Amino acid sequence: MSHEQTLTRVRDHVRQTILLSAIEQALGWDERCMMPQQGGEYRAEQMTLLAGMIHERNTAPQLGEWYAELAASPLASDPHSDTGATIRELKRNYDKQVKLPKSLVEELARATVRGQQIWQEARAKNDFKSFQPVLTEIFRLKQQQAAAIGYEKDAYDALLDDYEPAAKTAEVTKVLAGLRDELVPLVAQIRDCGRAPDVSIVERRFPVDAQERFGKAAAAAIGFDFQRGRLDVTAHPFCTTLGPHDHRITTRYDEQFFNSAFFGILHEAGHGLYELGLNTAEYGFPLGAAISLGIHESQSRLWENFVGRSRAFWQHFYPAAQREFPEALAKTKLDDFHFAINDVRPSLIRVEADEATYNLHILIRFELEQAVISGQLKVADLPGAWNEKYEQALGVRPPSDADGVLQDIHWSAGLIGYFPTYSLGNLYAGQFFAQADRDLGGLDAQIARGEFTPLREWLIDRIHRHGQRYTATELVQRVTGRPLSHAPLMKHLRDKFGALYGLS
Amino acid sequence: MSHEQTLTRVRDHVRQTILLSAIEQALGWDERCMMPQQGGEYRAEQMTLLAGMIHERNTAPQLGEWYAELAASPLASDPHSDTGATIRELKRNYDKQVKLPKSLVEELARATVRGQQIWQEARAKNDFKSFQPVLTEIFRLKQQQAAAIGYEKDAYDALLDDYEPAAKTAEVTKVLAGLRDELVPLVAQIRDCGRAPDVSIVERRFPVDAQERFGKAAAAAIGFDFQRGRLDVTAHPFCTTLGPHDHRITTRYDEQFFNSAFFGILHEAGHGLYELGLNTAEYGFPLGAAISLGIHESQSRLWENFVGRSRAFWQHFYPAAQREFPEALAKTKLDDFHFAINDVRPSLIRVEADEATYNLHILIRFELEQAVISGQLKVADLPGAWNEKYEQALGVRPPSDADGVLQDIHWSAGLIGYFPTYSLGNLYAGQFFAQADRDLGGLDAQIARGEFTPLREWLIDRIHRHGQRYTATELVQRVTGRPLSHAPLMKHLRDKFGALYGLS
Repeated sequence: MSHEQTLTRVRDHVRQTILLSAIEQALGWDERCMMPQQGGEYRAEQMTLLAGMIHERNTAPQLGEWYAELAASPLASDPHSDTGATIRELKRNYDKQVKLPKSLVEELARATVRGQQIWQEARAKNDFKSFQPVLTEIFRLKQQQAAAIGYEKDAYDALLDDYEPAAKTAEVTKVLAGLRDELVPLVAQIRDCGRAPDVSIVERRFPVDAQERFGKAAAAAIGFDFQRGRLDVTAHPFCTTLGPHDHRITTRYDEQFFNSAFFGILHEAGHGLYELGLNTAEYGFPLGAAISLGIHESQSRLWENFVGRSRAFWQHFYPAAQREFPEALAKTKLDDFHFAINDVRPSLIRVEADEATYNLHILIRFELEQAVISGQLKVADLPGAWNEKYEQALGVRPPSDADGVLQDIHWSAGLIGYFPTYSLGNLYAGQFFAQADRDLGGLDAQIARGEFTPLREWLIDRIHRHGQRYTATELVQRVTGRPLSHAPLMKHLRDKFGALYGLS
Repeated sequence: MSHEQTLTRVRDHVRQTILLSAIEQALGWDERCMMPQQGGEYRAEQMTLLAGMIHERNTAPQLGEWYAELAASPLASDPHSDTGATIRELKRNYDKQVKLPKSLVEELARATVRGQQIWQEARAKNDFKSFQPVLTEIFRLKQQQAAAIGYEKDAYDALLDDYEPAAKTAEVTKVLAGLRDELVPLVAQIRDCGRAPDVSIVERRFPVDAQERFGKAAAAAIGFDFQRGRLDVTAHPFCTTLGPHDHRITTRYDEQFFNSAFFGILHEAGHGLYELGLNTAEYGFPLGAAISLGIHESQSRLWENFVGRSRAFWQHFYPAAQREFPEALAKTKLDDFHFAINDVRPSLIRVEADEATYNLHILIRFELEQAVISGQLKVADLPGAWNEKYEQALGVRPPSDADGVLQDIHWSAGLIGYFPTYSLGNLYAGQFFAQADRDLGGLDAQIARGEFTPLREWLIDRIHRHGQRYTATELVQRVTGRPLSHAPLMKHLRDKFGALYGLS
């Protein structure tokens, strides 16, 4: 059999696994958006069956032989060629999956199901102690996972790699530290400057049907294709892909708060645009798949914050907003509205945080989870350490663990190494947006005219269409000519909030 | 291995197949209710993969050995015991499936996909000739299917059995002929009596949101459990089951016509109530599955027509309807509304037919498809024969094949032997409803008080909870003490329309 024939066999095998994964996504979407309350138990059985089938296909021994052959063949000699990148990424994932003992995978599945249940109750009762044993167990299993996968320097590398492939803890630490050193003083300066927007503007009555219409119109305007996607309501919004031409975004509406649904829709539409921009002929294969959670988040943050929270965006959209929400906005000036949607305020809850302080919330989690994985911090000491760090970074101290260390689902679900991808997304977004601004000759004027196509096409051309051909690190270098830095994001924040808050 | 152990292995095997079928249902529901326009191609690949997996599991040779052993064992000695009925029905389905050559299954799949495409165009262009070749091919393949399955007297028996297991053409012909002999004169009498309702009452403006609210309230009132189900919009309404506690009904709204959505919802909710009433512990197995399409249709028709179109039902619901639709109904009297929703009028289109004439539409199709399968009628002669029969039975003659022989999708999809189950459903419904009325001491008064629980529980107890323990024929005998007859349905129609139309 020639190497080409082996590759064809691999692709036939993987194509079927991708189909099963798409089915899994469809059932997951249904579960979160549509399924009647009592449907959950049987749905869980379906998901378990599919997960087992997918795992079995993903770890089939035959694949290992094929990948070994292909990796040593001329087809893989250029790691950035079509076949080279495909073989490289498929093999990388396979090698990781077969390193995990089945018993560990099952233990983790059980512990995280229990973990999420216990976490939910613990948060409701503000009772960290009841959560501590299962969280300790989860961290212990994640340490085992890191050991099974292997790492050079930091055990945390092996976990981070699940969400941000090839990223290294030391590098992420360095770039985020650079960000923190400049961000903490900026946030303090904003807090102490004596100016603040009238946030009551976005807390008036915004009827849900108008929010839906306006949000869909904005998503369509930036390029989300409703022939290839849809928007629905869910409790915890997300974006998911059910096939090369089936992308579903979700939101939730609060009639008394404009920001949550509108910027949520732009955020998820940004994720959706990335998926829509991938190579559909390679759907599910490395050349047609997203690089990393950080790059994914850069696309959502770019549309949500860099575009959606800009003054230029509202120059274009504010008249339509005033027509859709006459009761709330007819008498409100554009500048007051724009200031209100850009309120910066140190707070306790990550998911409600603004564009500037958000990254400080992430930094805290990143430092804490690293410390636990490396053995420097005990799970029992997490609440105290958490509160200390909030005091230092944001000047606020959680009155309770429910508003502190218990607020996020991630650790209970075993998602350790996930948090930094949120901030990496903001950093990538800052660097990409600055580059696009240079390449396209000033985005502000285009955005103010409602012209989003040049930016969207730039993103497709520079980022989306490559799939996983390059690692995130390579891609940033390739697109912007330099490695990832905190400087573009900080410049954006300083320029924007400097003007809004009248900072010197 | 003991027979009990063999049965356990069978159940483990079948349970996983049932899970895959439920997944297939979920994807099918999504396709018809939710999927974005361009998602179809990839969804079709998912459906093909699942269909192949299910077929392979359903025809696994190991199953044949297990069934042979079990059928000869004491576990199967009583065909109505839990194990006896389970083995009987599983084996029956297996034996049928393995009789069909794979090549025929594939040819049928291809021909019916093509058939539906060509039919759609042919109907739009009123061009039977373009449909004739593929329809001829489909009938030829269905004759082959009947030959492969085998039959005693009528080839049609083998096809009917797919939808109404164990039913015999000769018996169905007899009972439907009895119905026709009395129904044709009744319809003629109504047509010629000189009275007619003011149908403009149901053609006023009925806002869609009010229709949805009112329809859901009625579905909930008769017992459709929205914790275990939901209602959505689709082009061709249906009811589907995604799990033991996940039943989805669908409808479509016409703002200018009250009947289509409201009675459609009651109809689909009736199907849903049957599924809700099945034994959930045996979900998907014979003891937890519907007997036949005819019995299924009896449940939808019972709630739609016998309950929903009764005067008693509107005694209870009309005040609420007037509140929901004040513009349309505030000044309309209950009796005029009740007469308007019971308009009887010979017409061309089956899906728009009323409770009385509907069965004549079915009879025509039943006779024609039998004649083609038995070789007495050529496909080329279908349009002429169709028009003749409409003239005779209903006194109307289609001005075009689009309004005649091309109106239904069924034949193009290979659904031959399916039509009679619609009329069987009406007959079963008539006989069950009359029995329930006797057993429960007069349903009218209960319905007029909005008390639907006794009837629903009677249906669960007598029909739903048995699953496939009895055949439809056995069940009717068991529940009503006599074999299926046209008499109860005719009595119902005569009583109801006699009063409404003032017939002597």
